[in-house]
Amino acid sequence: MTWPEVVEAAEQGYVPILVVGATEQHGPHLPLGSDWILPLEIAVGVAKRLKVLVPPPLMYGFKSKALSGGGQRFPGTASLRGSTLTALVHDVVSELARSGFRHLVVMNWHMENVNFIWEGIDLAREDGGLRDATVMSMDDPERAFDMREIETWMFDDGFPGWDVEHASTVETSLMLAVRPELVRNDLIADDAAEDHPWYDIVPEPERHVAKSGVLANASQASVEKGERYFEMIVTEVAAAIEREFGTERHG
Amino acid sequence: MTWPEVVEAAEQGYVPILVVGATEQHGPHLPLGSDWILPLEIAVGVAKRLKVLVPPPLMYGFKSKALSGGGQRFPGTASLRGSTLTALVHDVVSELARSGFRHLVVMNWHMENVNFIWEGIDLAREDGGLRDATVMSMDDPERAFDMREIETWMFDDGFPGWDVEHASTVETSLMLAVRPELVRNDLIADDAAEDHPWYDIVPEPERHVAKSGVLANASQASVEKGERYFEMIVTEVAAAIEREFGTERHG
Amino acid sequence: MTWPEVVEAAEQGYVPILVVGATEQHGPHLPLGSDWILPLEIAVGVAKRLKVLVPPPLMYGFKSKALSGGGQRFPGTASLRGSTLTALVHDVVSELARSGFRHLVVMNWHMENVNFIWEGIDLAREDGGLRDATVMSMDDPERAFDMREIETWMFDDGFPGWDVEHASTVETSLMLAVRPELVRNDLIADDAAEDHPWYDIVPEPERHVAKSGVLANASQASVEKGERYFEMIVTEVAAAIEREFGTERHG
Amino acid sequence: MTWPEVVEAAEQGYVPILVVGATEQHGPHLPLGSDWILPLEIAVGVAKRLKVLVPPPLMYGFKSKALSGGGQRFPGTASLRGSTLTALVHDVVSELARSGFRHLVVMNWHMENVNFIWEGIDLAREDGGLRDATVMSMDDPERAFDMREIETWMFDDGFPGWDVEHASTVETSLMLAVRPELVRNDLIADDAAEDHPWYDIVPEPERHVAKSGVLANASQASVEKGERYFEMIVTEVAAAIEREFGTERHG
Amino acid sequence: MTWPEVVEAAEQGYVPILVVGATEQHGPHLPLGSDWILPLEIAVGVAKRLKVLVPPPLMYGFKSKALSGGGQRFPGTASLRGSTLTALVHDVVSELARSGFRHLVVMNWHMENVNFIWEGIDLAREDGGLRDATVMSMDDPERAFDMREIETWMFDDGFPGWDVEHASTVETSLMLAVRPELVRNDLIADDAAEDHPWYDIVPEPERHVAKSGVLANASQASVEKGERYFEMIVTEVAAAIEREFGTERHG
Amino acid sequence: MTWPEVVEAAEQGYVPILVVGATEQHGPHLPLGSDWILPLEIAVGVAKRLKVLVPPPLMYGFKSKALSGGGQRFPGTASLRGSTLTALVHDVVSELARSGFRHLVVMNWHMENVNFIWEGIDLAREDGGLRDATVMSMDDPERAFDMREIETWMFDDGFPGWDVEHASTVETSLMLAVRPELVRNDLIADDAAEDHPWYDIVPEPERHVAKSGVLANASQASVEKGERYFEMIVTEVAAAIEREFGTERHG
Repeated sequence: MTWPEVVEAAEQGYVPILVVGATEQHGPHLPLGSDWILPLEIAVGVAKRLKVLVPPPLMYGFKSKALSGGGQRFPGTASLRGSTLTALVHDVVSELARSGFRHLVVMNWHMENVNFIWEGIDLAREDGGLRDATVMSMDDPERAFDMREIETWMFDDGFPGWDVEHASTVETSLMLAVRPELVRNDLIADDAAEDHPWYDIVPEPERHVAKSGVLANASQASVEKGERYFEMIVTEVAAAIEREFGTERHG
Repeated sequence: MTWPEVVEAAEQGYVPILVVGATEQHGPHLPLGSDWILPLEIAVGVAKRLKVLVPPPLMYGFKSKALSGGGQRFPGTASLRGSTLTALVHDVVSELARSGFRHLVVMNWHMENVNFIWEGIDLAREDGGLRDATVMSMDDPERAFDMREIETWMFDDGFPGWDVEHASTVETSLMLAVRPELVRNDLIADDAAEDHPWYDIVPEPERHVAKSGVLANASQASVEKGERYFEMIVTEVAAAIEREFGTERHG
Repeated sequence: MTWPEVVEAAEQGYVPILVVGATEQHGPHLPLGSDWILPLEIAVGVAKRLKVLVPPPLMYGFKSKALSGGGQRFPGTASLRGSTLTALVHDVVSELARSGFRHLVVMNWHMENVNFIWEGIDLAREDGGLRDATVMSMDDPERAFDMREIETWMFDDGFPGWDVEHASTVETSLMLAVRPELVRNDLIADDAAEDHPWYDIVPEPERHVAKSGVLANASQASVEKGERYFEMIVTEVAAAIEREFGTERHG
Repeated sequence: MTWPEVVEAAEQGYVPILVVGATEQHGPHLPLGSDWILPLEIAVGVAKRLKVLVPPPLMYGFKSKALSGGGQRFPGTASLRGSTLTALVHDVVSELARSGFRHLVVMNWHMENVNFIWEGIDLAREDGGLRDATVMSMDDPERAFDMREIETWMFDDGFPGWDVEHASTVETSLMLAVRPELVRNDLIADDAAEDHPWYDIVPEPERHVAKSGVLANASQASVEKGERYFEMIVTEVAAAIEREFGTERHG
Repeated sequence: MTWPEVVEAAEQGYVPILVVGATEQHGPHLPLGSDWILPLEIAVGVAKRLKVLVPPPLMYGFKSKALSGGGQRFPGTASLRGSTLTALVHDVVSELARSGFRHLVVMNWHMENVNFIWEGIDLAREDGGLRDATVMSMDDPERAFDMREIETWMFDDGFPGWDVEHASTVETSLMLAVRPELVRNDLIADDAAEDHPWYDIVPEPERHVAKSGVLANASQASVEKGERYFEMIVTEVAAAIEREFGTERHG
Repeated sequence: MTWPEVVEAAEQGYVPILVVGATEQHGPHLPLGSDWILPLEIAVGVAKRLKVLVPPPLMYGFKSKALSGGGQRFPGTASLRGSTLTALVHDVVSELARSGFRHLVVMNWHMENVNFIWEGIDLAREDGGLRDATVMSMDDPERAFDMREIETWMFDDGFPGWDVEHASTVETSLMLAVRPELVRNDLIADDAAEDHPWYDIVPEPERHVAKSGVLANASQASVEKGERYFEMIVTEVAAAIEREFGTERHG
């Protein structure tokens, strides 16, 4: 995209979706980039339906916690301090608003980013960086669904909780559906931390860390589950944007 | 407590519980301090059973979000930027470690504080401020329970979700149980935001804000529910500390 | 206090007194919280006379210096970096202004907090956080008095200087007057650093640190002195607020 | 790449090249991402020859200056504050070192990033984040060449200076060579600011801003020039890495 | 001084005195630089007696307060935020320690700098920047004296307090003694704020600001007083350095 | 200068030149302050021609890089973190604007300061600190000249590049011309790093550091070259200010 094209897109009411993810271990079978690849694919999916743009995603996110991402000790996990992430969102969101966009979406897929992103947006609001723009902040579009409905076809033994849904059924299925060439099928296996309490311990004890980096049942994943779920998410995100911002469908 | 008493307590293996809350609207019937009063009461309850200390709590927390606390527009809500909260936790946790305590607990009761607190602890770990101390970070001790069990006796219509459990059944019941003199019984009433989607909008639209500041069914609260739940939480928190840190019961 | 009560109080011209203190060793006989307990008692005393409110105090303050508080090596002293304290004051003062209060008081009792607090207030002024509020910053209300008058009845051997008046005659007397149950009478004893020059040395040498944490003559303290002095301070603080802000007395 | 593959790569002496660019107007004919697309292509080119990896690039950079990038007023230019960029580099470089890589390259293509990147690396050195890793910081690989040699075949009227080589002969040629599908051939045209002094003015006057965003002679660009120059750069960067780090060629 | 001379000086035990002052109005008769000129002259005076060096002084300081410097509204007063001053001291002190000096002095002459300077030094201690150096922090060398002795010959009507000793008897006398060519004798006149209470108000009211910027009795100044006092200060500072650091006199 | 004189100067259209330099090794023959002494002399030279003022210079700058200043390991080099320098410029520039000056010049002589200074100015613009002032930022006034003209008489073997022109022909000549008493003639000698590639390495290897701190041919310096060049620079800087700001010559 060139700058005159940005001028035109802003005038036509296009909405940028700023994707925020992480570079974080996702077991032996999923790439480190899973947390930005998935929301990027979703954003691109939405862009096929609505007047939506996808600026360069934020591919690094906040530190991984042991119980929801394996923690910071895995090689390959490359994380930001919270203040860096907040500053990054603050700056980029302000710049998108300066470029003339009146409606923005920030779509996050990494649990640990929660609140740091919202704060970045809110600081931009506070110092005038948002101008008259409105921002929709999606802390994981999966939250849109009632898990009681989904768990019937997604999980064999019920929904284990979003925290352990890391490199497991949901993410593996989605990756199989949208970027199968990046999945090492031969290495898909279940795993879990020895102990998974309701609190975190710093520094994390060995028993809170799943050895392979898979926090639950990756082996339950399938292309079909992924395709069905991906379609649901894209549809819901598009519906939300359309509803809130009146963003038009492609003519 | 005097400083020689701190020396003695540290030697005897006492564990400080640093309470982190918020000063935030809790409807017309609960005090602004509910988010630090409740965890403080819990900590004091635990201190009656175990060798536990309660240093001055952090009574201000991160900004309130519209959909989980009513948002920043309510007078009386007095919040910190995320960086301030992280710095505060970073400093106090380091100082407790410097004072000689080997095990620390940080107990949070305000959803929006999540991750900012953990980052404060982790930065202390990173720069050596923790020394050889281990920190247990409790992002809301209520997360200890399987809501499917509790909802049978706590909620008439099922668990509405932690985000709207603000100034509602749970918090009102707990306050009725532990600090009844601070509850305005005559003003307890249900409320809800007109619209409660799965994403946040910045700046928040009116329809995301419950007018009274109560996000769900406060009228379902009762002293009995509060007492039962308070006992459950104190018991579970004490059990967790005993299990992880080997903290002794009072002789 | 509930949020509708804040609305009402702001409309009626109530003035919040934000207390800033420290968690710092105060010898073997006074609690670590002396620096926030005393100004809190004073603020409560003022609130009995004038339309004044007392929001949650800031109970942690800047680092202790060897020559005015014993320094950072005492277990139990739990301090903030200067930037943390400034951010905290900046945020809370801005939030009180946002809540609708037109006049605010910040009352400090910890010498080392000086300038960090003022900067927090000034940054709020600079970025518009104060809105149209005016803030009275009291760096120790004791500064209101001409020590030449007080020393005749307070000190046997003349006023030794505010820097060493830490856990000594004044603070011990005040605590005996307002919170006697927190004073260990049996442990009151004089002490002093071996050397007390006009400059600070970093890191502090042993000879600048009073072993017990008492920097002068605690044994000269008495309930009578405390009561007399407490009454003087409350009266003077109330008079200052009334004079500057026109704050009304209770009807 | 998965995390076990990172472990293996680090053991085999692979060198990550962290690309830093910008999202900045590049005239009507080049995409906003030119400053990260070009170094990314170069890094990928090097990776075909040497044991080199390419982690997710930093696609946002420091603010654009009027005289070297058109300045911040162009829609589409989305920039970071200097402190954000430094923090980002500081964090990512530290994480790569933590992952076990002993040699790192940071390759920058955006003039305004200079010094902010170096500072990020140096802060990581200072606080131990680099561990025992060594970092090669390339502030524009084009600096490797003696322009007097290149200008004979690259520029019709001599080298105009790196500052105005923005969206002009060099960058257009390179994009034509490596990503021709992203170049709007029909819109390639020369331009220049009305005035181009040796100092900057803040805020920038209109006469310092080239209207189209092209700072010099884009029309001199050609695929051939681009291919020749691209090959030169890839060769030189690979040679530098091989020389400094002893990085091996693919077997 | 060249770098090999620094190596030699450090080996010979020379002590650098880092002067910290301010650029602040000093009435119509004294230059804006008085707060760094005076301590610089003192440092140079000490350097004539002891093995002492004077690195470039910090000529900008923290914001001026109405009641001790006239406040920030005077043109010509050019101040730093507290965080800037702390960072500056932190950096420079660390660099002097890195250069090999084992003993450092920081000499301040601007009341509002207090605590920000100490924090800068302490942060350097905390992060290891001080290495094995010891720093003497002088918050105004005038604090060395018992004012009861000095007031007999310095002030006609007794010591008015350090806060109003701004551009008044002491500073004017000292400037007359050491830099008479910078004093506008014809413009020396007394002044005072209309009101001078024991607390600060933000934003400052007009009645707290002395119109001319002189806070007390400048007309009592004389060359003789200045010379006598200057000699006293230089002697005392030199004695303190000699005593604490064993710094030698010139052979 | 006194504050009423500042008021008058601002009204008469005087332009302050804020000098930014460094305290950095300059070989065995030039003083550590060369980087602020030279621009200060230039500013004073300009002030003799135009209505220009010279506020206290910033004598500390960003860290020295091995290949352009010898690096941070030389004793005597005393540098700031980038964030400190940016904050310093941000504050001082804002204060000069507050004092009423409508046009400001920031003149830098230390290559490593580049971008940090510009960011300080731009942040002041962004937060309103500049008010309606315009700032001319000179990243080294030497950039004003076409080196092809100068090299004929300045360098025996052609211009070696600005990065190695450190403590070499240009700076030594200028110091000989304007502050000969600070030059150790007997110690002037050529030197160079063993290796001088186009990229930086962190931490810097020995072979990138010129042992004496002289990066090229200091022995080619002469008073005549210095005088000629100094005159050229002063003339060009004055011309630029006159042209951009309409600043008047002295009557």
